[in-house]
Amino acid sequence: MTTPCIICVAITGSVARKSDNPAVPVTVDEQIESTHESYEAGAAIAHCHVRNDDGSPSSDPEKFARLKEGLEKHCPGMIIQFSTGGRSGAGKARGGMLPLGPDMASLAVGSNNFPTRVYENPPDLVDWLAAEMLAHDVKPEIEAFDLSHIFKAMEMADRGQFSGTPYVQFVMGVKNAMPADREVFDFYVKTVHRLFGSDAPWCAAGVGANQIVLNDWAISGGGHART
Amino acid sequence: MTTPCIICVAITGSVARKSDNPAVPVTVDEQIESTHESYEAGAAIAHCHVRNDDGSPSSDPEKFARLKEGLEKHCPGMIIQFSTGGRSGAGKARGGMLPLGPDMASLAVGSNNFPTRVYENPPDLVDWLAAEMLAHDVKPEIEAFDLSHIFKAMEMADRGQFSGTPYVQFVMGVKNAMPADREVFDFYVKTVHRLFGSDAPWCAAGVGANQIVLNDWAISGGGHART
Ligand SMILES: [Zn+2]
Ligand SMILES: [Zn+2]
Ligand SMILES: [Zn+2]
Ligand SMILES: [Zn+2]
Repeated sequence: MTTPCIICVAITGSVARKSDNPAVPVTVDEQIESTHESYEAGAAIAHCHVRNDDGSPSSDPEKFARLKEGLEKHCPGMIIQFSTGGRSGAGKARGGMLPLGPDMASLAVGSNNFPTRVYENPPDLVDWLAAEMLAHDVKPEIEAFDLSHIFKAMEMADRGQFSGTPYVQFVMGVKNAMPADREVFDFYVKTVHRLFGSDAPWCAAGVGANQIVLNDWAISGGGHART
Repeated sequence: MTTPCIICVAITGSVARKSDNPAVPVTVDEQIESTHESYEAGAAIAHCHVRNDDGSPSSDPEKFARLKEGLEKHCPGMIIQFSTGGRSGAGKARGGMLPLGPDMASLAVGSNNFPTRVYENPPDLVDWLAAEMLAHDVKPEIEAFDLSHIFKAMEMADRGQFSGTPYVQFVMGVKNAMPADREVFDFYVKTVHRLFGSDAPWCAAGVGANQIVLNDWAISGGGHART
Protein backbone atom coordinates (compact mmCIF):
# COMPACT_ATOMS: atom_id res chain seq x y z
CA MET A 1 0.00 0.00 0.00
CA THR A 2 1.40 3.34 -0.99
CA THR A 3 -1.75 5.32 -0.15
CA PRO A 4 -0.96 7.78 2.65
CA CYS A 5 -2.94 7.16 5.84
CA ILE A 6 -5.25 10.01 6.80
CA ILE A 7 -5.22 10.66 10.53
CA CYS A 8 -8.40 12.15 11.90
CA VAL A 9 -8.09 13.58 15.41
CA ALA A 10 -11.13 13.77 17.66
CA ILE A 11 -9.77 16.38 20.00
CA THR A 12 -12.75 16.58 22.34
CA GLY A 13 -15.22 13.83 21.47
CA SER A 14 -18.70 13.67 22.85
CA VAL A 15 -18.39 12.08 26.27
CA ALA A 16 -15.19 12.68 28.25
CA ARG A 17 -15.12 15.56 30.73
CA LYS A 18 -12.26 17.40 32.43
CA SER A 19 -13.06 15.30 35.48
CA ASP A 20 -12.20 12.21 33.40
CA ASN A 21 -9.04 13.74 31.98
CA PRO A 22 -7.88 17.32 32.66
CA ALA A 23 -6.33 17.42 29.18
CA VAL A 24 -9.74 17.30 27.43
CA PRO A 25 -10.06 20.63 25.57
CA VAL A 26 -13.44 22.18 26.33
CA THR A 27 -13.39 25.87 25.44
CA VAL A 28 -12.99 26.90 21.83
CA ASP A 29 -9.55 28.34 22.61
CA GLU A 30 -8.42 25.08 24.21
CA GLN A 31 -9.77 23.17 21.20
CA ILE A 32 -7.90 25.35 18.74
CA GLU A 33 -4.64 24.93 20.63
CA SER A 34 -5.12 21.17 20.99
CA THR A 35 -5.92 20.80 17.29
CA HIS A 36 -2.87 22.88 16.43
CA GLU A 37 -0.64 20.40 18.29
CA SER A 38 -2.25 17.50 16.39
CA TYR A 39 -1.82 19.40 13.12
CA GLU A 40 1.89 19.88 13.78
CA ALA A 41 2.10 16.16 14.59
CA GLY A 42 0.57 15.24 11.22
CA ALA A 43 -3.19 14.94 11.67
CA ALA A 44 -5.10 15.84 8.51
CA ILE A 45 -8.73 15.95 9.72
CA ALA A 46 -10.06 17.61 12.88
CA HIS A 47 -13.27 15.93 14.12
CA CYS A 48 -14.98 18.63 16.18
CA HIS A 49 -17.56 18.65 18.94
CA VAL A 50 -18.29 21.82 20.90
CA ARG A 51 -19.15 22.08 24.57
CA ASN A 52 -20.89 24.38 26.97
CA ASP A 53 -18.69 26.04 29.59
CA ASP A 54 -19.70 23.38 32.15
CA GLY A 55 -18.39 20.69 29.78
CA SER A 56 -21.81 19.41 28.67
CA PRO A 57 -22.38 18.76 24.94
CA SER A 58 -23.50 21.69 22.78
CA SER A 59 -24.47 22.14 19.17
CA ASP A 60 -24.29 25.95 19.22
CA PRO A 61 -23.48 27.20 15.69
CA GLU A 62 -21.74 30.26 17.14
CA LYS A 63 -19.18 28.07 18.94
CA PHE A 64 -18.66 26.01 15.77
CA ALA A 65 -18.14 29.26 13.83
CA ARG A 66 -15.44 30.50 16.23
CA LEU A 67 -13.77 27.07 16.18
CA LYS A 68 -13.75 26.96 12.38
CA GLU A 69 -12.29 30.46 12.16
CA GLY A 70 -9.54 29.59 14.66
CA LEU A 71 -8.67 26.32 12.93
CA GLU A 72 -8.50 27.96 9.51
CA LYS A 73 -6.06 30.51 10.94
CA HIS A 74 -3.86 28.23 13.04
CA CYS A 75 -4.05 25.00 11.01
CA PRO A 76 -4.16 26.06 7.35
CA GLY A 77 -5.17 23.24 4.99
CA MET A 78 -6.45 21.01 7.77
CA ILE A 79 -9.79 19.35 6.93
CA ILE A 80 -12.47 20.52 9.35
CA GLN A 81 -15.15 17.95 10.21
CA PHE A 82 -18.08 18.88 12.46
CA SER A 83 -19.96 16.26 14.42
CA THR A 84 -23.70 16.00 13.90
CA GLY A 85 -23.83 13.18 16.45
CA GLY A 86 -26.82 12.81 18.68
CA ARG A 87 -25.29 13.57 22.05
CA SER A 88 -25.08 17.30 21.43
CA GLY A 89 -28.61 18.12 20.38
CA ALA A 90 -31.97 16.77 19.36
CA GLY A 91 -33.44 16.72 15.88
CA LYS A 92 -32.50 19.44 13.45
CA ALA A 93 -30.44 21.28 16.09
CA ARG A 94 -27.82 18.62 15.32
CA GLY A 95 -27.30 20.16 11.87
CA GLY A 96 -27.70 23.85 12.69
CA MET A 97 -23.99 24.47 12.05
CA LEU A 98 -23.90 22.93 8.55
CA PRO A 99 -24.53 26.27 6.77
CA LEU A 100 -21.07 27.26 8.05
CA GLY A 101 -19.78 24.93 5.34
CA PRO A 102 -17.12 22.85 7.09
CA ASP A 103 -15.19 20.55 4.75
CA MET A 104 -16.87 17.48 6.28
CA ALA A 105 -19.44 16.45 8.85
CA SER A 106 -20.18 13.12 10.50
CA LEU A 107 -23.49 11.52 9.52
CA ALA A 108 -25.18 8.59 11.22
CA VAL A 109 -27.53 6.93 8.71
CA GLY A 110 -29.21 4.41 11.00
CA SER A 111 -30.15 3.86 14.61
CA ASN A 112 -28.63 1.52 17.18
CA ASN A 113 -28.29 1.06 20.90
CA PHE A 114 -25.71 2.89 22.99
CA PRO A 115 -24.65 1.79 26.48
CA THR A 116 -27.73 3.16 28.23
CA ARG A 117 -30.07 4.42 25.51
CA VAL A 118 -31.15 4.33 21.88
CA TYR A 119 -29.03 6.38 19.49
CA GLU A 120 -31.96 7.77 17.54
CA ASN A 121 -31.40 8.74 13.92
CA PRO A 122 -34.88 8.62 12.40
CA PRO A 123 -35.07 8.32 8.60
CA ASP A 124 -36.45 11.82 8.05
CA LEU A 125 -33.67 13.42 10.13
CA VAL A 126 -31.02 11.43 8.26
CA ASP A 127 -32.46 12.63 4.94
CA TRP A 128 -32.55 16.24 6.17
CA LEU A 129 -28.96 16.19 7.45
CA ALA A 130 -27.75 14.69 4.16
CA ALA A 131 -29.65 17.36 2.20
CA GLU A 132 -28.13 20.13 4.31
CA MET A 133 -24.66 18.70 3.68
CA LEU A 134 -25.29 18.49 -0.05
CA ALA A 135 -26.64 22.08 -0.11
CA HIS A 136 -23.61 23.46 1.73
CA ASP A 137 -20.99 21.34 -0.04
CA VAL A 138 -20.09 19.40 3.12
CA LYS A 139 -18.66 15.89 2.58
CA PRO A 140 -20.25 13.40 4.95
CA GLU A 141 -18.32 10.83 6.91
CA ILE A 142 -20.79 7.95 7.33
CA GLU A 143 -20.65 6.55 10.86
CA ALA A 144 -21.32 2.81 10.56
CA PHE A 145 -22.24 1.55 14.01
CA ASP A 146 -23.62 -1.61 12.42
CA LEU A 147 -23.47 -3.45 9.10
CA SER A 148 -26.79 -2.25 7.69
CA HIS A 149 -25.55 1.34 7.89
CA ILE A 150 -23.10 0.60 5.06
CA PHE A 151 -25.99 -0.63 2.90
CA LYS A 152 -28.04 2.44 3.81
CA ALA A 153 -25.12 4.61 2.66
CA MET A 154 -25.20 2.81 -0.68
CA GLU A 155 -28.94 3.35 -1.05
CA MET A 156 -28.50 7.05 -0.29
CA ALA A 157 -25.61 7.33 -2.75
CA ASP A 158 -27.77 5.66 -5.42
CA ARG A 159 -30.51 8.23 -4.78
CA GLY A 160 -28.06 11.09 -5.18
CA GLN A 161 -28.16 12.08 -1.52
CA PHE A 162 -24.35 12.34 -1.47
CA SER A 163 -21.90 13.62 -4.04
CA GLY A 164 -19.06 11.27 -4.85
CA THR A 165 -18.13 8.01 -3.18
CA PRO A 166 -19.33 7.75 0.44
CA TYR A 167 -16.55 7.84 3.02
CA VAL A 168 -17.49 5.25 5.64
CA GLN A 169 -16.11 5.02 9.17
CA PHE A 170 -16.57 1.76 11.06
CA VAL A 171 -17.24 2.44 14.73
CA MET A 172 -16.50 -0.53 16.95
CA GLY A 173 -16.36 -1.22 20.66
CA VAL A 174 -19.49 0.70 21.68
CA LYS A 175 -21.40 -1.30 24.29
CA ASN A 176 -24.76 -2.55 22.94
CA ALA A 177 -23.68 -1.75 19.39
CA MET A 178 -20.87 -3.51 17.44
CA PRO A 179 -17.96 -4.96 19.41
CA ALA A 180 -14.38 -4.81 18.09
CA ASP A 181 -14.52 -8.13 16.25
CA ARG A 182 -11.86 -8.88 13.66
CA GLU A 183 -14.04 -11.02 11.39
CA VAL A 184 -16.70 -8.32 11.32
CA PHE A 185 -14.05 -5.72 10.58
CA ASP A 186 -12.80 -7.76 7.62
CA PHE A 187 -16.38 -8.18 6.40
CA TYR A 188 -16.95 -4.42 6.70
CA VAL A 189 -13.91 -3.74 4.50
CA LYS A 190 -15.04 -6.37 2.00
CA THR A 191 -18.54 -4.88 1.92
CA VAL A 192 -17.27 -1.34 1.31
CA HIS A 193 -15.17 -2.61 -1.58
CA ARG A 194 -18.08 -4.61 -2.99
CA LEU A 195 -20.57 -1.74 -2.77
CA PHE A 196 -18.38 1.27 -3.54
CA GLY A 197 -15.46 -0.17 -5.50
CA SER A 198 -12.04 -1.51 -4.63
CA ASP A 199 -10.61 2.03 -4.45
CA ALA A 200 -13.23 3.30 -2.00
CA PRO A 201 -11.60 4.85 1.07
CA TRP A 202 -12.72 3.91 4.58
CA CYS A 203 -11.65 4.56 8.13
CA ALA A 204 -12.22 3.01 11.52
CA ALA A 205 -12.67 4.21 15.07
CA GLY A 206 -12.44 2.15 18.24
CA VAL A 207 -13.98 3.43 21.43
CA GLY A 208 -11.92 3.53 24.63
CA ALA A 209 -9.43 0.69 24.90
CA ASN A 210 -10.39 -0.43 21.39
CA GLN A 211 -8.95 2.72 19.82
CA ILE A 212 -5.45 1.31 19.47
CA VAL A 213 -6.81 -2.04 18.24
CA LEU A 214 -8.79 -0.36 15.48
CA ASN A 215 -5.86 1.88 14.58
CA ASP A 216 -3.75 -1.23 14.09
CA TRP A 217 -6.37 -3.03 11.99
CA ALA A 218 -7.17 0.07 9.90
CA ILE A 219 -3.61 1.13 9.15
CA SER A 220 -2.43 -2.39 8.31
CA GLY A 221 -5.56 -2.96 6.20
CA GLY A 222 -5.13 0.10 3.99
CA GLY A 223 -7.70 2.28 5.73
CA HIS A 224 -7.54 5.56 7.56
CA ALA A 225 -7.39 6.14 11.29
CA ARG A 226 -9.20 8.05 14.02
CA THR A 227 -7.34 9.00 17.16
CA MET B 1 -28.79 -32.21 6.13
CA THR B 2 -31.24 -34.55 7.83
CA THR B 3 -32.44 -31.98 10.37
CA PRO B 4 -36.15 -31.36 9.88
CA CYS B 5 -37.01 -27.78 8.93
CA ILE B 6 -39.17 -25.98 11.46
CA ILE B 7 -41.82 -23.86 9.77
CA CYS B 8 -42.95 -20.87 11.79
CA VAL B 9 -46.16 -19.27 10.55
CA ALA B 10 -46.82 -15.60 11.21
CA ILE B 11 -50.54 -15.72 10.69
CA THR B 12 -51.26 -12.03 11.26
CA GLY B 13 -48.00 -10.13 11.50
CA SER B 14 -47.76 -6.57 12.66
CA VAL B 15 -48.59 -4.45 9.66
CA ALA B 16 -51.03 -5.83 7.08
CA ARG B 17 -54.71 -4.93 7.42
CA LYS B 18 -57.86 -6.45 5.95
CA SER B 19 -57.77 -3.57 3.49
CA ASP B 20 -54.41 -4.92 2.26
CA ASN B 21 -55.60 -8.51 2.12
CA PRO B 22 -59.06 -9.68 3.23
CA ALA B 23 -57.52 -13.01 4.30
CA VAL B 24 -55.55 -11.42 7.17
CA PRO B 25 -56.96 -12.93 10.37
CA VAL B 26 -57.73 -10.16 12.86
CA THR B 27 -60.09 -11.43 15.53
CA VAL B 28 -58.89 -14.14 17.90
CA ASP B 29 -61.37 -16.60 16.35
CA GLU B 30 -60.06 -15.87 12.86
CA GLN B 31 -56.49 -16.28 14.14
CA ILE B 32 -57.24 -19.65 15.71
CA GLU B 33 -58.86 -20.93 12.52
CA SER B 34 -56.02 -19.62 10.35
CA THR B 35 -53.40 -21.18 12.61
CA HIS B 36 -55.29 -24.46 12.56
CA GLU B 37 -55.03 -24.56 8.76
CA SER B 38 -51.29 -23.91 8.99
CA TYR B 39 -50.96 -26.59 11.66
CA GLU B 40 -52.67 -29.13 9.44
CA ALA B 41 -50.32 -28.09 6.64
CA GLY B 42 -47.28 -28.78 8.81
CA ALA B 43 -46.32 -25.54 10.57
CA ALA B 44 -44.70 -26.17 13.96
CA ILE B 45 -44.55 -22.67 15.46
CA ALA B 46 -47.31 -20.05 15.51
CA HIS B 47 -45.90 -16.52 15.68
CA CYS B 48 -48.72 -14.46 17.17
CA HIS B 49 -49.69 -10.80 17.16
CA VAL B 50 -53.06 -9.64 18.42
CA ARG B 51 -55.15 -6.80 17.05
CA ASN B 52 -57.85 -4.44 18.15
CA ASP B 53 -61.23 -4.88 16.45
CA ASP B 54 -60.38 -2.04 14.05
CA GLY B 55 -57.26 -3.95 12.95
CA SER B 56 -54.76 -1.74 14.77
CA PRO B 57 -51.95 -3.47 16.74
CA SER B 58 -52.69 -4.47 20.34
CA SER B 59 -50.69 -6.01 23.16
CA ASP B 60 -53.73 -6.83 25.32
CA PRO B 61 -52.87 -9.84 27.54
CA GLU B 62 -56.53 -10.87 27.58
CA LYS B 63 -56.52 -11.33 23.79
CA PHE B 64 -53.26 -13.27 23.97
CA ALA B 65 -54.78 -15.49 26.68
CA ARG B 66 -57.81 -16.34 24.55
CA LEU B 67 -55.58 -17.00 21.54
CA LYS B 68 -53.30 -19.31 23.54
CA GLU B 69 -56.27 -21.22 24.92
CA GLY B 70 -57.74 -21.67 21.46
CA LEU B 71 -54.44 -22.77 19.91
CA GLU B 72 -53.79 -25.30 22.68
CA LYS B 73 -57.21 -26.78 22.03
CA HIS B 74 -57.24 -26.78 18.23
CA CYS B 75 -53.53 -27.26 17.50
CA PRO B 76 -52.18 -29.59 20.20
CA GLY B 77 -48.39 -29.67 20.38
CA MET B 78 -47.93 -26.59 18.26
CA ILE B 79 -45.31 -24.20 19.65
CA ILE B 80 -46.91 -20.89 20.59
CA GLN B 81 -44.73 -17.81 20.12
CA PHE B 82 -45.97 -14.36 21.15
CA SER B 83 -44.58 -11.21 19.57
CA THR B 84 -43.13 -8.59 21.89
CA GLY B 85 -42.38 -6.40 18.87
CA GLY B 86 -42.61 -2.68 19.16
CA ARG B 87 -45.54 -1.97 16.90
CA SER B 88 -48.11 -3.25 19.35
CA GLY B 89 -47.22 -1.30 22.47
CA ALA B 90 -44.73 0.95 24.17
CA GLY B 91 -42.29 -0.01 26.90
CA LYS B 92 -43.24 -2.76 29.32
CA ALA B 93 -46.72 -3.09 27.80
CA ARG B 94 -44.91 -5.08 25.10
CA GLY B 95 -44.22 -7.86 27.61
CA GLY B 96 -47.44 -7.77 29.62
CA MET B 97 -48.53 -11.14 28.19
CA LEU B 98 -45.35 -13.02 29.11
CA PRO B 99 -46.74 -14.27 32.47
CA LEU B 100 -49.14 -16.35 30.35
CA GLY B 101 -46.11 -18.53 29.69
CA PRO B 102 -46.19 -19.12 25.93
CA ASP B 103 -43.56 -21.59 24.69
CA MET B 104 -41.64 -18.78 22.99
CA ALA B 105 -41.65 -15.03 22.44
CA SER B 106 -39.85 -12.83 19.97
CA LEU B 107 -37.18 -10.56 21.45
CA ALA B 108 -35.47 -7.65 19.73
CA VAL B 109 -32.13 -7.03 21.45
CA GLY B 110 -31.07 -3.86 19.65
CA SER B 111 -32.50 -0.84 17.89
CA ASN B 112 -32.58 -0.01 14.20
CA ASN B 113 -34.47 2.06 11.70
CA PHE B 114 -37.75 0.96 10.15
CA PRO B 115 -39.21 2.47 6.96
CA THR B 116 -40.48 5.65 8.62
CA ARG B 117 -39.28 5.57 12.23
CA VAL B 118 -36.81 4.23 14.78
CA TYR B 119 -37.57 0.74 16.10
CA GLU B 120 -36.75 1.56 19.70
CA ASN B 121 -35.55 -1.24 21.95
CA PRO B 122 -33.67 0.55 24.73
CA PRO B 123 -31.19 -1.56 26.73
CA ASP B 124 -33.21 -1.51 29.96
CA LEU B 125 -36.37 -2.69 28.18
CA VAL B 126 -34.44 -5.49 26.46
CA ASP B 127 -33.07 -6.61 29.82
CA TRP B 128 -36.54 -6.50 31.40
CA LEU B 129 -38.19 -8.49 28.59
CA ALA B 130 -35.43 -11.11 28.77
CA ALA B 131 -35.85 -11.36 32.56
CA GLU B 132 -39.62 -11.80 32.20
CA MET B 133 -39.06 -14.57 29.66
CA LEU B 134 -36.58 -16.31 31.94
CA ALA B 135 -38.97 -15.99 34.92
CA HIS B 136 -41.88 -17.49 32.99
CA ASP B 137 -39.88 -20.16 31.15
CA VAL B 138 -40.45 -18.57 27.74
CA LYS B 139 -37.81 -19.34 25.09
CA PRO B 140 -36.85 -16.17 23.21
CA GLU B 141 -36.48 -15.99 19.46
CA ILE B 142 -33.87 -13.28 18.93
CA GLU B 143 -34.86 -10.97 16.08
CA ALA B 144 -31.62 -9.93 14.36
CA PHE B 145 -32.41 -6.88 12.25
CA ASP B 146 -28.69 -6.16 12.01
CA LEU B 147 -25.39 -7.92 12.62
CA SER B 148 -24.64 -6.44 16.04
CA HIS B 149 -27.85 -7.97 17.38
CA ILE B 150 -26.27 -11.44 17.07
CA PHE B 151 -23.32 -10.27 19.17
CA LYS B 152 -25.68 -8.73 21.72
CA ALA B 153 -27.44 -12.11 21.97
CA MET B 154 -24.10 -13.72 22.76
CA GLU B 155 -23.34 -11.16 25.45
CA MET B 156 -26.75 -11.76 27.02
CA ALA B 157 -26.28 -15.54 26.87
CA ASP B 158 -22.88 -15.17 28.56
CA ARG B 159 -24.53 -13.16 31.34
CA GLY B 160 -27.15 -15.83 31.89
CA GLN B 161 -30.01 -13.73 30.52
CA PHE B 162 -31.23 -16.70 28.45
CA SER B 163 -31.37 -20.40 29.22
CA GLY B 164 -29.81 -22.63 26.58
CA THR B 165 -28.51 -21.69 23.16
CA PRO B 166 -30.08 -18.54 21.73
CA TYR B 167 -32.37 -19.12 18.75
CA VAL B 168 -31.66 -16.32 16.30
CA GLN B 169 -33.87 -15.20 13.45
CA PHE B 170 -32.32 -13.07 10.71
CA VAL B 171 -34.80 -10.46 9.49
CA MET B 172 -33.98 -9.13 6.05
CA GLY B 173 -35.64 -6.85 3.53
CA VAL B 174 -36.90 -4.20 5.96
CA LYS B 175 -36.39 -0.75 4.41
CA ASN B 176 -33.78 1.27 6.34
CA ALA B 177 -32.60 -1.88 8.15
CA MET B 178 -30.84 -4.87 6.52
CA PRO B 179 -31.61 -5.65 2.88
CA ALA B 180 -31.90 -9.22 1.63
CA ASP B 181 -28.23 -9.59 0.69
CA ARG B 182 -26.84 -13.08 0.12
CA GLU B 183 -23.30 -12.34 1.35
CA VAL B 184 -24.65 -10.86 4.55
CA PHE B 185 -26.93 -13.86 4.99
CA ASP B 186 -23.96 -16.22 4.65
CA PHE B 187 -22.00 -14.11 7.13
CA TYR B 188 -24.93 -14.22 9.57
CA VAL B 189 -24.96 -18.02 9.43
CA LYS B 190 -21.18 -18.15 9.86
CA THR B 191 -21.39 -15.79 12.82
CA VAL B 192 -24.10 -17.83 14.57
CA HIS B 193 -21.98 -20.94 14.15
CA ARG B 194 -18.87 -19.16 15.41
CA LEU B 195 -20.57 -17.68 18.47
CA PHE B 196 -23.03 -20.42 19.43
CA GLY B 197 -21.53 -23.59 17.94
CA SER B 198 -21.88 -25.44 14.68
CA ASP B 199 -25.08 -27.12 15.88
CA ALA B 200 -26.81 -23.87 16.84
CA PRO B 201 -30.20 -23.56 15.15
CA TRP B 202 -31.24 -20.40 13.32
CA CYS B 203 -34.06 -19.20 11.14
CA ALA B 204 -34.68 -16.40 8.69
CA ALA B 205 -37.55 -14.14 7.72
CA GLY B 206 -37.83 -11.99 4.63
CA VAL B 207 -40.28 -9.13 4.54
CA GLY B 208 -42.74 -8.78 1.67
CA ALA B 209 -41.36 -10.01 -1.64
CA ASN B 210 -38.22 -11.16 0.15
CA GLN B 211 -40.09 -13.85 2.08
CA ILE B 212 -39.73 -16.48 -0.63
CA VAL B 213 -36.07 -15.53 -1.18
CA LEU B 214 -35.25 -15.99 2.50
CA ASN B 215 -37.22 -19.25 2.65
CA ASP B 216 -35.09 -20.56 -0.19
CA TRP B 217 -31.80 -19.46 1.40
CA ALA B 218 -32.76 -20.72 4.87
CA ILE B 219 -34.08 -24.12 3.86
CA SER B 220 -31.18 -24.85 1.51
CA GLY B 221 -28.71 -23.61 4.13
CA GLY B 222 -29.90 -25.85 6.94
CA GLY B 223 -31.91 -23.24 8.80
CA HIS B 224 -35.56 -22.88 9.68
CA ALA B 225 -38.20 -20.86 7.91
CA ARG B 226 -40.78 -18.19 8.63
CA THR B 227 -43.84 -17.90 6.41
ZN1 LIG C 1 -17.56 12.52 17.44
ZN1 LIG D 1 -1.84 27.77 17.25
ZN1 LIG E 1 -44.08 -10.52 14.33
ZN1 LIG F 1 -59.76 -25.61 14.56
